[in-house]
Amino acid sequence: MNEDSADNVLPAMALNAPVVGLTVGRVIESRHPDFPEGELLMGRFAWEEYTISDGTAFVKPMPSEITSPLSHYLGILGDTGLSAYFGMMDIGKPRPGETVLVSAAAGAVGSVAGQIAKIFGARTVGITSSEEKCRRLVDDFGYDATIDRNAVDDLGEAIANACPDGVDIYFDSIGGSMLEAALGNLAVKARVVLCGAISTYGNAEPAPGPSNLFELVTKQATMKGFLCHLEADRYDEARRQLSAWIDSGKIKNVEYMFEGIENTPLAFCQMFRGQNVGKTLVRIADE
Amino acid sequence: MNEDSADNVLPAMALNAPVVGLTVGRVIESRHPDFPEGELLMGRFAWEEYTISDGTAFVKPMPSEITSPLSHYLGILGDTGLSAYFGMMDIGKPRPGETVLVSAAAGAVGSVAGQIAKIFGARTVGITSSEEKCRRLVDDFGYDATIDRNAVDDLGEAIANACPDGVDIYFDSIGGSMLEAALGNLAVKARVVLCGAISTYGNAEPAPGPSNLFELVTKQATMKGFLCHLEADRYDEARRQLSAWIDSGKIKNVEYMFEGIENTPLAFCQMFRGQNVGKTLVRIADE
Repeated sequence: MNEDSADNVLPAMALNAPVVGLTVGRVIESRHPDFPEGELLMGRFAWEEYTISDGTAFVKPMPSEITSPLSHYLGILGDTGLSAYFGMMDIGKPRPGETVLVSAAAGAVGSVAGQIAKIFGARTVGITSSEEKCRRLVDDFGYDATIDRNAVDDLGEAIANACPDGVDIYFDSIGGSMLEAALGNLAVKARVVLCGAISTYGNAEPAPGPSNLFELVTKQATMKGFLCHLEADRYDEARRQLSAWIDSGKIKNVEYMFEGIENTPLAFCQMFRGQNVGKTLVRIADE
Repeated sequence: MNEDSADNVLPAMALNAPVVGLTVGRVIESRHPDFPEGELLMGRFAWEEYTISDGTAFVKPMPSEITSPLSHYLGILGDTGLSAYFGMMDIGKPRPGETVLVSAAAGAVGSVAGQIAKIFGARTVGITSSEEKCRRLVDDFGYDATIDRNAVDDLGEAIANACPDGVDIYFDSIGGSMLEAALGNLAVKARVVLCGAISTYGNAEPAPGPSNLFELVTKQATMKGFLCHLEADRYDEARRQLSAWIDSGKIKNVEYMFEGIENTPLAFCQMFRGQNVGKTLVRIADE
């Protein structure tokens, strides 16, 4: 979810308010009956090494059985990997030979979405923001073709060239002009997975939407949005499948890891500037 | 498909080219083996009482069994009624108690779409362009609530007032700002049926799309386009069902009938200005 971001400001933040991020941590001292010492928790905590909480900030429990490195539960087995899973499985539904176009293709969501589409026999085309990241799309995530959006004059034309049979599935985390360019290249009965719209997150005013929504009519296409956290009752199923794909080598999990709390602002800015490949993480303690 | 049209110019037309319209007619003389004298045909013919054709302009055969007045095959059992049927049945899928918002609600498509939704127990809210047409929406088509888009300052607010539980199905023939207003009022898991975009037909430049497509994400909503004529193998099924609903009084078929070829331009202009209720037709000969 980071591709259009080089052109954007960072999202607006309140002055003097703590900046929070999704965190996995261990309870080191507790007077709360529900959260005993030693337990692992996941929460949206401030950027700090130790957090005091009354228990209300816990956004979700960790799985009862921890079988993977903890970082996975923030990435490939967390919101980003699960978003890729539900978006691609429930809405995209890739079939052999179909063309799947992924925005923010090197990001934490896009890299997983593209690999899931490959597992189902689709041809994957990834849009990213540099030559280096294009190379990583192919080498790390098995994309069949790539588009460096900063190296093309006309994104719609670049998509047309990379997807000569049209786009059967467009996995969109960007919105804006990239969505418009993709809509202009849909195949008949295409599916557009709306996962986010990072291109609009920093804007004070709502940006105009794509002027070519009528493509959905002429292509009999479907556009559908979803929210990962509303599928919580299927997290176990999704995590089992994703873990199996990781274990069998069908999905490569790439993490963009920073060390130490002091590097959190840098990690955050690099992610919003689209400099990461895979999931951006900050390690503030050992497991 | 006529509601936003009062604000619009008529669609652009080539000078000196014949203007065509969908026509049902009878072969009165033939040297073509496939089209014997006396046969009924449907085609996109010029605005004239008698047409000479080499057979290539026939867009579709008439049903093998004609059981209704011929005018029905241009309206309620033709493109407009069938569009309402496929859009509402395949994409909208109304359920009891749901709120269904219909644009161009008094038009040939919208009037049927709203009535189908009623049959399935939904609450229907129609948007149209005058107080008189609002009255017809309730009296003729059974709408539960109406919005006169020319009498409200803020269409989004008017939709919010008329649909306090949100819009479960929005049947859109308009696009543009009306689509944006509807998207701002979607219920969770809403379906948006894209049937056309008459607000854009007369435009030389593509208009910006809705700025709030992100509503599809937060509401986990689906937007889907379709083309009626690609469902031709289901026309018999659809016509049988629509005819049964007409016969049982569940759907009222309203025709906006003009008499004589000389009134065709008037009929066309009134339709694009949204003055019609139901299907606009010109009778140029008796059955």
